[in-house]
Amino acid sequence: MKVALAQINTVVGDVWGNVEKTAGALERAVEGGADLVAFPELTMTGYPPEDLLLRPSFIRDNLDALEEFTGKVPEGVVAAVGFVDLDGDLHNACGVISGGEVLHRYHKRYLPNYGVFDENRYFREGEGPAPILKMGRDLVGLSICEDIWYPAGPAHDQALGGAGVLLNISASPYHRLRGAYRERMLGTRASDDGCYVVFCNLVGGQDELVFDGRSSVFDPEGNPIARAKQFEEDLLFVDLRPEEALFHRLHDPRPRKEDPDRHPEMITVPLSTSEPVGEPINRAGIEHRIEPPLPEEGEVLEALTLGLSDYFRKNGFSRAVLGLSGGIDSSLGAAVAARALGPENVTGVLMPSRYTSETSNTDARAVVKNLGIDNQEIPIGPAFDAYGEMLEEAFKGLPEDETEENIQSRIRGNILMALSNKFGWIVLSTGNKSETSVGYSTLYGDTAGGFSVIRDVPKTLVYRVARHINEVEGREIIPDSILTKEPSAELREDQRDVDSLPPYEVLDPILEAYVEEDKGVGEIIAAGFDEEDVKRAVSLVDRSEYKRRQAPTGIKVTARSFGRDRRMPITNRYREEDGDERRSE
Amino acid sequence: MKVALAQINTVVGDVWGNVEKTAGALERAVEGGADLVAFPELTMTGYPPEDLLLRPSFIRDNLDALEEFTGKVPEGVVAAVGFVDLDGDLHNACGVISGGEVLHRYHKRYLPNYGVFDENRYFREGEGPAPILKMGRDLVGLSICEDIWYPAGPAHDQALGGAGVLLNISASPYHRLRGAYRERMLGTRASDDGCYVVFCNLVGGQDELVFDGRSSVFDPEGNPIARAKQFEEDLLFVDLRPEEALFHRLHDPRPRKEDPDRHPEMITVPLSTSEPVGEPINRAGIEHRIEPPLPEEGEVLEALTLGLSDYFRKNGFSRAVLGLSGGIDSSLGAAVAARALGPENVTGVLMPSRYTSETSNTDARAVVKNLGIDNQEIPIGPAFDAYGEMLEEAFKGLPEDETEENIQSRIRGNILMALSNKFGWIVLSTGNKSETSVGYSTLYGDTAGGFSVIRDVPKTLVYRVARHINEVEGREIIPDSILTKEPSAELREDQRDVDSLPPYEVLDPILEAYVEEDKGVGEIIAAGFDEEDVKRAVSLVDRSEYKRRQAPTGIKVTARSFGRDRRMPITNRYREEDGDERRSE
Repeated sequence: MKVALAQINTVVGDVWGNVEKTAGALERAVEGGADLVAFPELTMTGYPPEDLLLRPSFIRDNLDALEEFTGKVPEGVVAAVGFVDLDGDLHNACGVISGGEVLHRYHKRYLPNYGVFDENRYFREGEGPAPILKMGRDLVGLSICEDIWYPAGPAHDQALGGAGVLLNISASPYHRLRGAYRERMLGTRASDDGCYVVFCNLVGGQDELVFDGRSSVFDPEGNPIARAKQFEEDLLFVDLRPEEALFHRLHDPRPRKEDPDRHPEMITVPLSTSEPVGEPINRAGIEHRIEPPLPEEGEVLEALTLGLSDYFRKNGFSRAVLGLSGGIDSSLGAAVAARALGPENVTGVLMPSRYTSETSNTDARAVVKNLGIDNQEIPIGPAFDAYGEMLEEAFKGLPEDETEENIQSRIRGNILMALSNKFGWIVLSTGNKSETSVGYSTLYGDTAGGFSVIRDVPKTLVYRVARHINEVEGREIIPDSILTKEPSAELREDQRDVDSLPPYEVLDPILEAYVEEDKGVGEIIAAGFDEEDVKRAVSLVDRSEYKRRQAPTGIKVTARSFGRDRRMPITNRYREEDGDERRSE
Repeated sequence: MKVALAQINTVVGDVWGNVEKTAGALERAVEGGADLVAFPELTMTGYPPEDLLLRPSFIRDNLDALEEFTGKVPEGVVAAVGFVDLDGDLHNACGVISGGEVLHRYHKRYLPNYGVFDENRYFREGEGPAPILKMGRDLVGLSICEDIWYPAGPAHDQALGGAGVLLNISASPYHRLRGAYRERMLGTRASDDGCYVVFCNLVGGQDELVFDGRSSVFDPEGNPIARAKQFEEDLLFVDLRPEEALFHRLHDPRPRKEDPDRHPEMITVPLSTSEPVGEPINRAGIEHRIEPPLPEEGEVLEALTLGLSDYFRKNGFSRAVLGLSGGIDSSLGAAVAARALGPENVTGVLMPSRYTSETSNTDARAVVKNLGIDNQEIPIGPAFDAYGEMLEEAFKGLPEDETEENIQSRIRGNILMALSNKFGWIVLSTGNKSETSVGYSTLYGDTAGGFSVIRDVPKTLVYRVARHINEVEGREIIPDSILTKEPSAELREDQRDVDSLPPYEVLDPILEAYVEEDKGVGEIIAAGFDEEDVKRAVSLVDRSEYKRRQAPTGIKVTARSFGRDRRMPITNRYREEDGDERRSE
């Protein structure tokens, strides 16, 4: 049987656009000879639709869209398409469609409600026997995303019930190294159940999430035999012999025990193209396309690029503006913007002050030239002097401090927002995750913007991705001077980041342990970090929650990003040292 | 039996402070002769602790805190205290403590995962028979918050199992008119089950939530017989005869059918003060305290005041600064701040421009005087001119537009932030819900601040609350001129809100239908609103999500606030008219 994995980029809320895109991919799949065409989870609504799901009009439109699509599926071809079913309650569903009819509505069994997921907020779990599609003599088990992450989930029942192929339609978001982890799990599921596993994933950016595609197919030994592109739409064909899985299982010594209460339900699917009985099942020479996976820096770069370009495209924006300081963060931000939007759609603004070094200006101009983006230079002196005058009486007799530093940063934010308002450009902010974690930023200053390009990229990874750009482009995009000079905010004389923070090589692993892994202070110190560094970093993270709450959204790249992934109260008096002191009293 | 409802104001994360507060209330309850002392849900951790619950160190500290509290409960007294139990998984739990021992750990059965709640993210539901505390010959059923909102929940099993008192410990957040709704439900529960219902609620502010207290007790006919204060800590005593509930049930003709599979578990609680058998159970003359409920405007005012004062106190802030425009919103914001923090801790800043009318300045100064708050006046002309100069080349040949309006608003935001940075004051923003809904505000301008006092108060309610303040104070706090003049942002010549928006009397009900009730466009028009007004309002709400996402937190007052209550994607192409057009094709 020929299966097409339609790895499409749907848009949240755009039910009619999604129908059109789904129908287009179906047509190409049918032209390619597909018997079965799979689409990503919640094809009709996009993923995740969040509280749109609470609107009755939205649910109705999604059902109308499913009906419209149903009419487009020809006889003899089966489409597995995601939608929201209304059946006593809302269900995250997969419609099995053939010959103008919805033959079955599968309801997702396992609803993720952790990390970035909130599916219990909206959906009820499906119940009853797991379905197997009977396509001629081929049996195909069907499940949705989270379902396949459990070894004893519906796919297991389907394998015991005779399925040779386990099809899973997904919306599995990217974070670094996630793709390889996911493939290991899917391969294990295939070899445990002795089945082909066909995994069709969503691709595209949706606010802070990027879905990486990388749809893939595993043979019953768990080897990947086909893999679609990462971070791009794709249509991947595989030609499978489900019977091979059954014969493979005969040679697997592990006994398989079926639970009679969980026996799957057979859904007969009328097919026009079923292979004739007796055709040899071991067809040599079937070559499937298997795209090579990107290296880690490449993944991150493509995730940032797709996340940014989709945020613009899906929201109807075209041009971006950002401040260029001559530092590594704004340089990487500009490079990603030029890749995502085209250099002709990006304006970099130099906004020097009395503290800006000539090197910074030179470096920033080099980035503009290397990328071929537009450029403006607007020195901030006049506004800074005006604020000094306006606040003179209020600040009389008081020394300069961070207030004056923040004023500079906010003037820059205001200039960018003024350009945004006048020309309709979207402001990109370019703070990295290390700064965001410890609050080393000015609210309404450098945090200002519609989208925060690298907010989930730790500083040490910022350098690696910047170097990677130079490598893949084969020329200097980010000047070497920027890659090697010491980081500074340049908001006062001779300022350096290390005056306020531990070096990033020390800070980043502490932040990873605290923010991404929920490790305690004692545990992090025990891992070999300096007690002062750990306590300072943790305290800064705790105290900066209010700043992060007002920052623009940006692309999730790590295992736990700020935002919908890590949900901390602002009002939070928890200090774990209190407990340590208490216990040692 | 004498029950004390300890309606205390816990702090999220402050496990040791919460133990101390809990122990203090216990002591006063014991002095008052209580046999049973109830505390709010999750007493040890505060509510809601959000992702602190994912930190192992936090869970351990919470268990240590429970142990410390356990040692403080004397023989013969029972305390029901909320904590996070670790028992295979995390549970939202209530510890039944007496004589230095935890006699039972009840696990919440119904976990709310809608609206502002995310309990499925953290907790597993409790299982098994519902517990009844056997205190001498008195039987008391125990449940937690959401449990009592279901007619067939554990309290029902407990009533069928013989309980005369149903104790529920809660953290039930306020929104307008919620208190009366909740009392109706609790009264119905009491009369359906023929039991006393004892409801002990949390009080206090936690980021956007305010818990209103209003702990209450209902007799088996469903009448409220005792009610604690709203929006204040309280210790409410009631003297109940659980046997009366049993006798009452004998006279209720409805047959009660117990499900043998759901028979409650008896937890024997050793008591020193059990009433001697044979004492007459109908003791006349027991007078319970029953606080009168506040009117709607009074509730809103107290919610805003408590929410703001707790945000400051719990985060260690003391002084606030806000811009005063002479309009109703900033005037109400200042009045709430003066109530919450004391007038000596509030600075109102007038920041006039060339477009500010003299009436506005006079009105703003009157507010300063009426409230007795500090005052500064900083005209924004110099910075506005400086931006004009800096942007002259970039804007050459282009007409003035909203860009110049936003620059004025952002200069004001910068001045307030500069005062904040220099003096450690917290900036209050004072946009109302009507503006917030339709995005009638300047990001980083009037939206700038650490806390947004009235962001969930619709404009028409802003007027009602402002008038209420004048009434309860018995003098003019908000000048009549402010209450009666036409709203204007004063960012250009002769600007009026009605030039950009429908009048608020029209806009507010449309917004309520769309934002709070998820009504569709067609439905709202069918309810009698002008089609143009509805479509414009809905489109503005949809397009302003990105602004709201970057706005400071503020107090939930309506049935659905923006923030954790209404979770919309920014990237969202859903337009319900598309479906209408499609269907009518």
